Amino acid sequence: MYQAKAYSASSATSSLASSTIARRDPTARDVQIEVLYCGICHTDLHVVRDEWKEFVPTVYPCVPGHEILGRVTSVGAEVTRFKPGDLAAVGCLVDSDRTCPDCLAGLEQFCANGVLTYNSPDKHLGGVTYGGYSDSIVVDEHFAVHVPSNLNLAGAAPLLCAGITTYSPMRHWGVTKGKKVGVVGLGGLGHMAVKFAHAFGAHVVVFTTSPHKKDDALRLGANEVVLSRNADEMKKHAGSFDFILDAVAASHDVNAYLQLLRRDGAMTLVGAPEKPLPVAAFNLILGRRSLSGSPIGGLPETQEMLDFCGEHNLTADVEIIPIQKVNEAYDRLLNSDVKYRFTIDMASLKSE
Amino acid sequence: MYQAKAYSASSATSSLASSTIARRDPTARDVQIEVLYCGICHTDLHVVRDEWKEFVPTVYPCVPGHEILGRVTSVGAEVTRFKPGDLAAVGCLVDSDRTCPDCLAGLEQFCANGVLTYNSPDKHLGGVTYGGYSDSIVVDEHFAVHVPSNLNLAGAAPLLCAGITTYSPMRHWGVTKGKKVGVVGLGGLGHMAVKFAHAFGAHVVVFTTSPHKKDDALRLGANEVVLSRNADEMKKHAGSFDFILDAVAASHDVNAYLQLLRRDGAMTLVGAPEKPLPVAAFNLILGRRSLSGSPIGGLPETQEMLDFCGEHNLTADVEIIPIQKVNEAYDRLLNSDVKYRFTIDMASLKSE
Repeated sequence: MYQAKAYSASSATSSLASSTIARRDPTARDVQIEVLYCGICHTDLHVVRDEWKEFVPTVYPCVPGHEILGRVTSVGAEVTRFKPGDLAAVGCLVDSDRTCPDCLAGLEQFCANGVLTYNSPDKHLGGVTYGGYSDSIVVDEHFAVHVPSNLNLAGAAPLLCAGITTYSPMRHWGVTKGKKVGVVGLGGLGHMAVKFAHAFGAHVVVFTTSPHKKDDALRLGANEVVLSRNADEMKKHAGSFDFILDAVAASHDVNAYLQLLRRDGAMTLVGAPEKPLPVAAFNLILGRRSLSGSPIGGLPETQEMLDFCGEHNLTADVEIIPIQKVNEAYDRLLNSDVKYRFTIDMASLKSE
Repeated sequence: MYQAKAYSASSATSSLASSTIARRDPTARDVQIEVLYCGICHTDLHVVRDEWKEFVPTVYPCVPGHEILGRVTSVGAEVTRFKPGDLAAVGCLVDSDRTCPDCLAGLEQFCANGVLTYNSPDKHLGGVTYGGYSDSIVVDEHFAVHVPSNLNLAGAAPLLCAGITTYSPMRHWGVTKGKKVGVVGLGGLGHMAVKFAHAFGAHVVVFTTSPHKKDDALRLGANEVVLSRNADEMKKHAGSFDFILDAVAASHDVNAYLQLLRRDGAMTLVGAPEKPLPVAAFNLILGRRSLSGSPIGGLPETQEMLDFCGEHNLTADVEIIPIQKVNEAYDRLLNSDVKYRFTIDMASLKSE
């Protein structure tokens, strides 16, 4: 066991502040990673503020962060895939049972015994797991992935959650060249969805309520931008989409989008609004359409996604901040005041 | 043009009564069918009473009926698939544009220019199409299907709507031997779903709110019956279903069923509740589950379904009534007082 520097919240109403946490000494199968960058996901804010207590109450101190990118500093005796000096990344999962059908299929995100990167029971040290707002992390090598060396490291960190969360459903529902793909909401997840759909060769339409996002959407790879509050503009696209990715976490009308799907079209939620979404049955029945959801991705697909990003030199658009500005960043996140993801430069933690 | 006997409603508040309607003389591609049996679908009641006026107002007089089974009495010069004396059946569609991608794929149910069997614009005679509560009907042979001669004809009529509406989604979503399949609601559609799922070799679980339906569900082919109001019973099936067919047209909580789906499981609506159904995003996201809908089926699949029924000697459980009891049957239908479908013996119309 050793002491690591971290930023943690001591209660649901506390700001994040400098602290020290215990990390386990690497076991035979572990890699120890010096964290270089950690993206800020909206989930971090929800968990720090205990906003999901009905599902999983937050245990304090809480160290969030599951978009972790760093460099391997040491490896256990049985580690085969990493060596000191390698780039390595960790996403939302740090363990799973490795034996269930989901794990055996490389779909660890569905494992009933998955261990999240933070605020999950820690079987090594007791208490809960601590995330990436820290100078180091220790994980089983199975839950670390390789990072193509050509990528901008700060921009690559958000790939571990915002990236895989949008890449995985588009692969699963067959987004390829020639498909017409909609992206609802141009935030952290949405902007990655646009980049991926464009890279897959799809015709990409961004739906937004903000006219000022139009130029940016086009720059990110959209072919068209539709103002979702303009019923006439929406109507022009009726029955034409193969796939729509809905990255909006606030309440909104999914029926307006379901009507835009063609026969057998699929709309997938990656944002989770707090209240149930009203769905009109006829919108599903008439075109044999589906509404589905998708959570992050498994480890093999996370590696595949990073490799794809390496080949296409694709990363998130990030605003790099020092850890000392994390509380301010949370406030700005609540106002959607970021293009499009904050990434913490963890070198800033050394001065604490 | 010739006069046919029929039962029609003259307004949204009228009972159905004996009347005479015009039918076209068969064109070169038409078959003329003497209607022997016609099933009563809940849609008939909705349309007769103009309950769907927001979507399609009912034009009166209205002759409902789209579960039509009869015998060919004459055929046009270019008809190749039928000859006088053949059994023939007609479902919910009597025409479509035949040129769109859906039609070319044999998925006429999705054609934007489909013509429904009743209350759709009739391009031959003007006015609207008239359905199967009649002694004869004339349709393009493309929209007639063959009926295996071993089937009980009264029980086969409901296959044309209740049958194909449940057969098609189970085929589409891959219900096969070894799959665990749920059926929500044991009515006209639900009881067909149980029979098909059983015939496909699936493990069939019926969900019902009525304890007294248990024995019947088992007789129809269910392996298990779950009382959906018993939370403990429901919980035992959490995360275990490959597919759930939801045949309930009244408001109900779909979330309770979504939670029972395994990873990548699909729940499909074939009943259309009037009000939107609240769907909790997490129930879709956590298992990459989908909620979808499905309308009837195309002509090739309708024929496939009838052939399957012939091979398995599978028909609906029906209560045969004379046409004179149709209004009483509608009242009983509203109270779910039928096991499980009314079929009108159209011989009764001769005495009118």
